[in-house]
Amino acid sequence: MLRIPERLLMGPGPSNVDPAVLEALALPTIGHLDPAFLGIMDDVQEMLRQVLNTKNPFTIAVSGTGSAAMEAAVDNLVEPGDRVVVGMNGVFGTRLIDMLSRVGAEVEALEITWGLPIPAEAVEKALKANPTKLVMLVHGETSTGVLQPLEGVGDLCHEHGAMLLIDCVTSLGGVPIHLDDWDIDACYSGTQKCLSIPPGLSPLSFSSAALEKLEGRDTRVSSWYLDMSMIREYWGANRRYHHTAPINMIYSLHEGLRRVLEEGLEERWNRHKHNAEALWVGLEALGWELFVEEKYRLAPLTTVRPPEDVDEKNLRAQLLADYGIEIGGGLGPLAGQVVRVGLMGTSSTPENLLKFLEAVEIITGVTPGLGTDAAEAALAS
Amino acid sequence: MLRIPERLLMGPGPSNVDPAVLEALALPTIGHLDPAFLGIMDDVQEMLRQVLNTKNPFTIAVSGTGSAAMEAAVDNLVEPGDRVVVGMNGVFGTRLIDMLSRVGAEVEALEITWGLPIPAEAVEKALKANPTKLVMLVHGETSTGVLQPLEGVGDLCHEHGAMLLIDCVTSLGGVPIHLDDWDIDACYSGTQKCLSIPPGLSPLSFSSAALEKLEGRDTRVSSWYLDMSMIREYWGANRRYHHTAPINMIYSLHEGLRRVLEEGLEERWNRHKHNAEALWVGLEALGWELFVEEKYRLAPLTTVRPPEDVDEKNLRAQLLADYGIEIGGGLGPLAGQVVRVGLMGTSSTPENLLKFLEAVEIITGVTPGLGTDAAEAALAS
Repeated sequence: MLRIPERLLMGPGPSNVDPAVLEALALPTIGHLDPAFLGIMDDVQEMLRQVLNTKNPFTIAVSGTGSAAMEAAVDNLVEPGDRVVVGMNGVFGTRLIDMLSRVGAEVEALEITWGLPIPAEAVEKALKANPTKLVMLVHGETSTGVLQPLEGVGDLCHEHGAMLLIDCVTSLGGVPIHLDDWDIDACYSGTQKCLSIPPGLSPLSFSSAALEKLEGRDTRVSSWYLDMSMIREYWGANRRYHHTAPINMIYSLHEGLRRVLEEGLEERWNRHKHNAEALWVGLEALGWELFVEEKYRLAPLTTVRPPEDVDEKNLRAQLLADYGIEIGGGLGPLAGQVVRVGLMGTSSTPENLLKFLEAVEIITGVTPGLGTDAAEAALAS
Repeated sequence: MLRIPERLLMGPGPSNVDPAVLEALALPTIGHLDPAFLGIMDDVQEMLRQVLNTKNPFTIAVSGTGSAAMEAAVDNLVEPGDRVVVGMNGVFGTRLIDMLSRVGAEVEALEITWGLPIPAEAVEKALKANPTKLVMLVHGETSTGVLQPLEGVGDLCHEHGAMLLIDCVTSLGGVPIHLDDWDIDACYSGTQKCLSIPPGLSPLSFSSAALEKLEGRDTRVSSWYLDMSMIREYWGANRRYHHTAPINMIYSLHEGLRRVLEEGLEERWNRHKHNAEALWVGLEALGWELFVEEKYRLAPLTTVRPPEDVDEKNLRAQLLADYGIEIGGGLGPLAGQVVRVGLMGTSSTPENLLKFLEAVEIITGVTPGLGTDAAEAALAS
């Protein structure tokens, strides 16, 4: 049997998975058309709606990791020649643009320095400049640790006849998201971040307007595997076979979502915020420079610049080898500049952030307690 | 916690998963760039090569169920305007054509009555008629239970400058497959059939010729999620992040493949054949009509026409409700005509086929022992 080393997952995802969720994952496999399995799918859809704060009937889990649902959103909601405005302030906005170019969209990238959100004014300007079908924004940019403000953006898009699509891979379950109240037309997410479910599935939700766009397409969806006009027949009342669902992954999604709702969304969001704030205080006490201004900071994922005398690559290797702690390196222009520290889902606990800070104190040779004492004080406040 | 009913999976897949494979699935999730996980990926690649009887360095598991690897094969190896010859004698050939039409291929379908394989002569005729880039055949057609003979077809394709791509979703691990000896350029499979691993991953192997085609493309691969020119950088030595791998699914693939190789490929193929033959004898003793001629019959999946007085839909419902046995109904033109009985991987045992035959005897009210006695005699021979 495989031996898996013990890890504290404090990188950009996956986060640590609760034993009960792993237990659900290992329940016996049954058929994808078994009435017992179809009932589990119904439960999953209902719980996904609750977690996303939406009533969208079309709320499902795509049979692939986060990028599969990202591509599903692009492939299904965009046709060749559609003008799409995309926020480009990190790796995932850039990935969206790559996918959009493959379906032949006319892309307008709203580029802004990594570390900042896309200003609503930039979206408005782009919407006024040319008729636009869709605006795409990343809610929680995993490469930069920026939280994109979304309130009012849906209205703005609709005033100009555009739909709003949101990437909430790293935000779902970790920070507030109100799909319906914020008038978001479509969103996708992943399971392995703040939901703390193993990677392999990706939630996807379309409003009625998004479904109308899908139904009114002039062209076929470019992907068969991700063609929601067929997949909705399986998740919907018809139960028409499309592809074999990842049965056991759906079990784990069921148990994971149940646990998220059992904790309570507000409580979960507050826990993420409270622990992240203590981490930030601890890191600043160590003299580390937080990369994102506090008002735009994404609680589940912190990007931070270590002091110049700390080699970030060695630090990460030592954390993993000596403490079993995984954190992430920087991506793209931030490679070698920052590290990314996740406090997502099950991984977001006071013990974990203190353990991490203590390990950093030892590895970097600073006064013991320099970061942990400050973080403990913040946790107690 | 979810309650999953006990099921004997004797349909077209998934098959029953061994407890050790489920145990591996539930090992703690770690990071997709963790050195420990990268080692597991290396092992998986090596074991996949052994199971496929290939030395292809590019042999990986796609992060989605069988149809994802099918689409990956189409998307990566076919460019708009490429002439592709496809065997069309069941649902999965038809699905291939659907996918091919989405990437703009010029498709020539070799249509033949469901229940028969594609004759080599038909392939040859099509190759002679027009310059062809690729021939696609389904090795084990899950909708009909036909095993496509493949020896010599690779040579035939290469003589005419075409590559050969094989769907071995239902055949891999259940019937002989020799990727290199049969000169097959590319193939894809699934995990939930004769490998008895939960659905969610799909093996994919490209020969050097297939990789050359990928490298020499004039157009981009239409899917980002399935773009093997990027994904090979993650599975290969560079380990460049593309998307988060379905970590736990890869654990289960590791344990499942280990068990397949532990049994031995020859032994496993023989087991599938021996049990299938006993099932056929039993079904014929019951007066059921086997749909496929014996020489083309796919051991892991049997299509069979029940007697006229048996309502196949009620039969399947009763088998599931009263005996926990899942079998499949007919697809497409065979809906309502046949049932599909799988003896795949872990599900392929004498006990299971006898249990099924006995349940059928009771439900259809025939003389007890009519089918089971005949099957038992066949098993003993």
